[in-house]
Amino acid sequence: MLKAEIKITLRKTVADPQGLTVKHALESLGYKGLEEVRIGKLITIKLKSKSAKEAERETGDMCKKLLANPIIEDFKFKIRKR
Amino acid sequence: MLKAEIKITLRKTVADPQGLTVKHALESLGYKGLEEVRIGKLITIKLKSKSAKEAERETGDMCKKLLANPIIEDFKFKIRKR
Repeated sequence: MLKAEIKITLRKTVADPQGLTVKHALESLGYKGLEEVRIGKLITIKLKSKSAKEAERETGDMCKKLLANPIIEDFKFKIRKR
Repeated sequence: MLKAEIKITLRKTVADPQGLTVKHALESLGYKGLEEVRIGKLITIKLKSKSAKEAERETGDMCKKLLANPIIEDFKFKIRKR
């Protein structure tokens, strides 16, 4: 059984208002040493038993087709045994 | 300069309707070998120069106070040089 852990982040050039809001909230709690806060998604998919190679191909495919928006987001993922 | 990468996930016992919706969407695209999809947050914080030890303490603190909801979420993080 394999598990794909996918990290989806906004591209560096894209503004992240949610991250900015969290940064301000943290600052108002007294955390002053923050330079930037950015918020992405962490998607975990449990895959029914397949080869790691097939899981890798399929996960990349799912990211491109549905999970990530390639205009504004980058993705990377790891396939792990579970 | 340090960077904290924080993974926030729903606890195993908590239902994840967003993940379920994404699972159904993937299945309707023809991906059949999925057992479970869960969606969490990936928060990246760039910290102004500090010791790794202080960054670790502060990040744990921020997670407990604001970033994660301990009733329904788990968090873990890594501090990296950048």
